[in-house]
Amino acid sequence: MKLPTLSDIRAAHSRIVPFIHRTPVLSSGQLNRIFGCELFFKCENFQKVGAFKFRGASNAVLALSIDEKKRGVVTHSSGNHAAALALAARMNGIRAQIVMPENAPDVKKNAVAGYGAEITFCQPTQKAREETTMRIMEKTGAILVHPYDNFNVICGQGTAALELLDEMSEPDIVIAPVGGGGLLSGTATCVRSIYSDTIVIGAEPLNASDAFRSFRSGILEPSVNPITIADGLLTSLSELTFAIIRNNVSDIITAKEESIVECMMLIWERMKIIVEPSSATVLAIIKENPGIFAKKRIGLIISGGNVDLRKLPF
Amino acid sequence: MKLPTLSDIRAAHSRIVPFIHRTPVLSSGQLNRIFGCELFFKCENFQKVGAFKFRGASNAVLALSIDEKKRGVVTHSSGNHAAALALAARMNGIRAQIVMPENAPDVKKNAVAGYGAEITFCQPTQKAREETTMRIMEKTGAILVHPYDNFNVICGQGTAALELLDEMSEPDIVIAPVGGGGLLSGTATCVRSIYSDTIVIGAEPLNASDAFRSFRSGILEPSVNPITIADGLLTSLSELTFAIIRNNVSDIITAKEESIVECMMLIWERMKIIVEPSSATVLAIIKENPGIFAKKRIGLIISGGNVDLRKLPF
Repeated sequence: MKLPTLSDIRAAHSRIVPFIHRTPVLSSGQLNRIFGCELFFKCENFQKVGAFKFRGASNAVLALSIDEKKRGVVTHSSGNHAAALALAARMNGIRAQIVMPENAPDVKKNAVAGYGAEITFCQPTQKAREETTMRIMEKTGAILVHPYDNFNVICGQGTAALELLDEMSEPDIVIAPVGGGGLLSGTATCVRSIYSDTIVIGAEPLNASDAFRSFRSGILEPSVNPITIADGLLTSLSELTFAIIRNNVSDIITAKEESIVECMMLIWERMKIIVEPSSATVLAIIKENPGIFAKKRIGLIISGGNVDLRKLPF
Repeated sequence: MKLPTLSDIRAAHSRIVPFIHRTPVLSSGQLNRIFGCELFFKCENFQKVGAFKFRGASNAVLALSIDEKKRGVVTHSSGNHAAALALAARMNGIRAQIVMPENAPDVKKNAVAGYGAEITFCQPTQKAREETTMRIMEKTGAILVHPYDNFNVICGQGTAALELLDEMSEPDIVIAPVGGGGLLSGTATCVRSIYSDTIVIGAEPLNASDAFRSFRSGILEPSVNPITIADGLLTSLSELTFAIIRNNVSDIITAKEESIVECMMLIWERMKIIVEPSSATVLAIIKENPGIFAKKRIGLIISGGNVDLRKLPF
């Protein structure tokens, strides 16, 4: 199993930089006072398609051979990766087929359709997603761009941390949310290669704590019908992301649903930016564990800002 | 009646620049495509206290004499000016007394209290506000810092446009919301002095159209119990702001409530930033009048981002 290195992430960045937004790193004096630490938010909610996922999807599409591009791409995703791959495919003039769980938020279904991808709906289980995707691959020859179990996708996701470290030298801690682990493993590879003393922590909803349990037990434990408001963090780690995380991540910490909602509101109210619940998880673990984070300089990867404004939890 | 000039606004900017945030000018390819014009949003929702009002309040406080500072300041405001004056006073170590209508949003009441100001509640009418303020001035000797009928406040508000023009040369049109007219008159003075060919337009809720009617009739027509979601735009013009607006503004255009809400949602969804309904008014007049704005380069002053997240209109 080939694990990504910093130079793979730098290569990904060079490849995608003409296509992505350089998202801002924002701070809030109010939030720093509330939590007693110094927070630097890398705001991928301002990324194209409203999420970091565009980085990985672009890198995967740009790395395809001409023959592979002709066959088009396919993926399954709870939403943001789907929109990201759809847009990356359209920008490269290739066909994209997307398998989405039928319970994905409308805002995400509409985004994918808006980018011109072909959608196939399936049951909201890992098994149904994978089977439906396999069927499409067999039928059309499309290339699978897995949302996180993909070398190039992981390298692309790591570029958000690369830019964060451009604007914030030597953080004590960097926190990224963890679902399938693509963002966390790309972030950890990047951060630990540049600053070996910096601690990287994964933030996960308590109600979808498969990564937490896997990290503790050392055995990949799948996510079973998780129910959390953080709809971007429902998926399970893969062998690849688990291996990277075990090598580079110091800890995975869980957050309760009410902390996630509270921290999402705090970010909206104090920073005036829209972040999705999955993003708020990184602040929620700080709220629940003030002792660990007090007085630290902390980089936070804000993963996205796609929420259905008609179905808010407050 | 002394009207502000560009050099007054530049002087205000020099005075307040160490204390304010330099807010970003943001664009959205999606919104440009939807509206068929090129939009530059000056994002005062990211200003301290979450609104442009901090500019005017800071300028007014910093311009006080030592003797005046000892007496403290007083104002009446539907919210953002109140928070702004409270913070500006606290940063200068002086006393602030704030008269607020009892129906002001909780988020604004809490902000004012949080900045350490003393609050007196009154009925939500212009008359009650002014009488209560007068009583406090007589009793305590506090200096009135009116939310918009104040030379220094207007100069401070004009500094947002000054910064906008730093990042956007020669706009065809600049739009600011209009309530009491402080922001619009400061904006118009600044923009018209720098680019005499640029058109400045005020955006006002149809349900609070006193400035629109006054502009048309040439006679100051007060606002009478207006009911609009744009709670920052309830107040009437003053003689001073009306005079400046008549000299410098090309038109005032109204927007329906449903357009304001729709454009607020559009900004939240596409730009991932929180803006209050008053701010969305500037986009709502573009939505209702596409012919006027098609293909133009337009600067928009986004006035603030203070909304009660538990009482959203969608």
